[in-house]
Amino acid sequence: MNSGKRILTGVRPTGPLHLGHYAGAIESWLTLQHEHECFFLIADWQVSDHAGDLPRVRSAVWEVALDWLAAGLDAEKSSFVIESVVPEHAELAMWMAWYCSIGMLDRNPTLKAEMASIERPDDAATSGRSIPVAFYIYPMMQVADILLPRAELVPVGDNQLPHVELARETARRFNREVGPVFPEPQALVGRVPRLVGTDGQAKMGKSRGNTINLKDSADEVARKVRTMFAGPPRGAREPGIVADNPVFAYLDAFDAQPAEVMDLKERYQRSGVGNQELKDRLTGVLDSLLEPMRERRAGFERNMPWVRDVVEAGSKRERVLAAQTMALVRDALGLGYLRRS
Amino acid sequence: MNSGKRILTGVRPTGPLHLGHYAGAIESWLTLQHEHECFFLIADWQVSDHAGDLPRVRSAVWEVALDWLAAGLDAEKSSFVIESVVPEHAELAMWMAWYCSIGMLDRNPTLKAEMASIERPDDAATSGRSIPVAFYIYPMMQVADILLPRAELVPVGDNQLPHVELARETARRFNREVGPVFPEPQALVGRVPRLVGTDGQAKMGKSRGNTINLKDSADEVARKVRTMFAGPPRGAREPGIVADNPVFAYLDAFDAQPAEVMDLKERYQRSGVGNQELKDRLTGVLDSLLEPMRERRAGFERNMPWVRDVVEAGSKRERVLAAQTMALVRDALGLGYLRRS
Repeated sequence: MNSGKRILTGVRPTGPLHLGHYAGAIESWLTLQHEHECFFLIADWQVSDHAGDLPRVRSAVWEVALDWLAAGLDAEKSSFVIESVVPEHAELAMWMAWYCSIGMLDRNPTLKAEMASIERPDDAATSGRSIPVAFYIYPMMQVADILLPRAELVPVGDNQLPHVELARETARRFNREVGPVFPEPQALVGRVPRLVGTDGQAKMGKSRGNTINLKDSADEVARKVRTMFAGPPRGAREPGIVADNPVFAYLDAFDAQPAEVMDLKERYQRSGVGNQELKDRLTGVLDSLLEPMRERRAGFERNMPWVRDVVEAGSKRERVLAAQTMALVRDALGLGYLRRS
Repeated sequence: MNSGKRILTGVRPTGPLHLGHYAGAIESWLTLQHEHECFFLIADWQVSDHAGDLPRVRSAVWEVALDWLAAGLDAEKSSFVIESVVPEHAELAMWMAWYCSIGMLDRNPTLKAEMASIERPDDAATSGRSIPVAFYIYPMMQVADILLPRAELVPVGDNQLPHVELARETARRFNREVGPVFPEPQALVGRVPRLVGTDGQAKMGKSRGNTINLKDSADEVARKVRTMFAGPPRGAREPGIVADNPVFAYLDAFDAQPAEVMDLKERYQRSGVGNQELKDRLTGVLDSLLEPMRERRAGFERNMPWVRDVVEAGSKRERVLAAQTMALVRDALGLGYLRRS
């Protein structure tokens, strides 16, 4: 374990990770893992929207572990944790729900947006009625995820900032009303908090089919780049607008030669460059990024028992902390009535 | 352990138990405990409304255990369980929340009434905002309370019937969509599901100050009966209406001589009996019921280490079942990825 601070971050296991995850989160974790004690959480209790497809949840858990390892996270230095393997997450969430009010949830803009997208106003009679109750509980699970290891830093995408704020508020209230147990976690936002998808329309996201996945083959990446949106149509030699062309967003995010990208942008705005040249460059850039990941992934895929072992070891490391935290919580509450088996 | 069926029932620890608890629940448990395998739960996770007074929660937990023992429940034959001492309650609740929809909660009239009493429509801007999130989670805890020991019978007050129905629906859905783990629990309603309070206005309940507690002294009981509501004012020899006089409700519930009570009712309706005679009889009846409880309680109070031991033993017995249930649930979900410590 490292000195430095304790970090908790993670992802919901819903499918393969993509460039948006890498630029928004994983890339910064690669640095953080050397300086801090990191817990990387696979939040399998928070995918109730996939309750109808449990085999997908199961396989996604291991996809995430493989993607993280392939990207360069060191599961022996840090701890990979499966949320449901540490049941103290649920136990702490139940107590934290005493110290978090509906008003605190109401002020959470990410939750509000999610609720609004589910509760269609044109269908008021049935709106939201088929939503699992779990959807209303998951903010408490996120609070517990952060507070259970008593994390000090939480690297997140900017849409997750309100959840960290909720954890901060809940921790403050518990510390004040019950006893000083939790550090107030600080959010850390990555370098590229919101990578646009290949359609140029919205944030990269699996449900929108606009992703380039970390495990995509070179051919798949080439095909996706070839067909990706590259700004509004323009004639040869017609000037382009950099902000309208998501290819530049990817070059900004992943090209190791920013001076060359700047030059390219100038020529593009003067109309001296066609989309083909841009896309050829991007394909090469992504290949340099992803080819080493593909190689590492293939190695780990051949060694799944080891992958299971490191995730098991990581989850156990968190359970040790979890037991300490729960003892502190019960002591503070004064509700540790009995010896526990 | 008994043969017969497995029973789960319980109470929230909010203060001393009263005659309403006895007539509506405990009295029937005294019979059931001889025929069935009973788990009596002290639901300390469901008192978030008392988060501001933790010492009261703590002492109420032991008040409940003492009241149950005093009433004649045998904690060696049955299992007294403190909910939070078995963290699998929270773990199971998190999974059950995947299989219970907001629509299922919406159809629960008890929850609806509770929500309505909290969300005052005259104050829409702030209504409900200070409610702990725990209030929205507790129905899932009740479902988990019932399903964790895979209970087959649930003796409850009639206002709790919707919660048992929710547990039935959730169990059915899990069994159908995931795998056959849970029996469908059946509700059992007690002989006197709703005992009126000493004010004659509402159900007996601590928050209304209209209770006669099982641990009240003979003097307290005499005083409470003396000042209790006994129907609308009437002159001497003026006929009374039995239904308007809660003293008769208590005599119906607790008098061991129903033929004499019937005779009394006839004379009362003919105006041949004053309230003093009724109340004297009731004081005697309650004394015969409560005096043996007071004596037993005093004995148990002198032996709190033994009380702790039996509650600990009961909680451990439930944890054994809980571990089995959680293994079944994880197997059915196929989410038992790893060995668990």
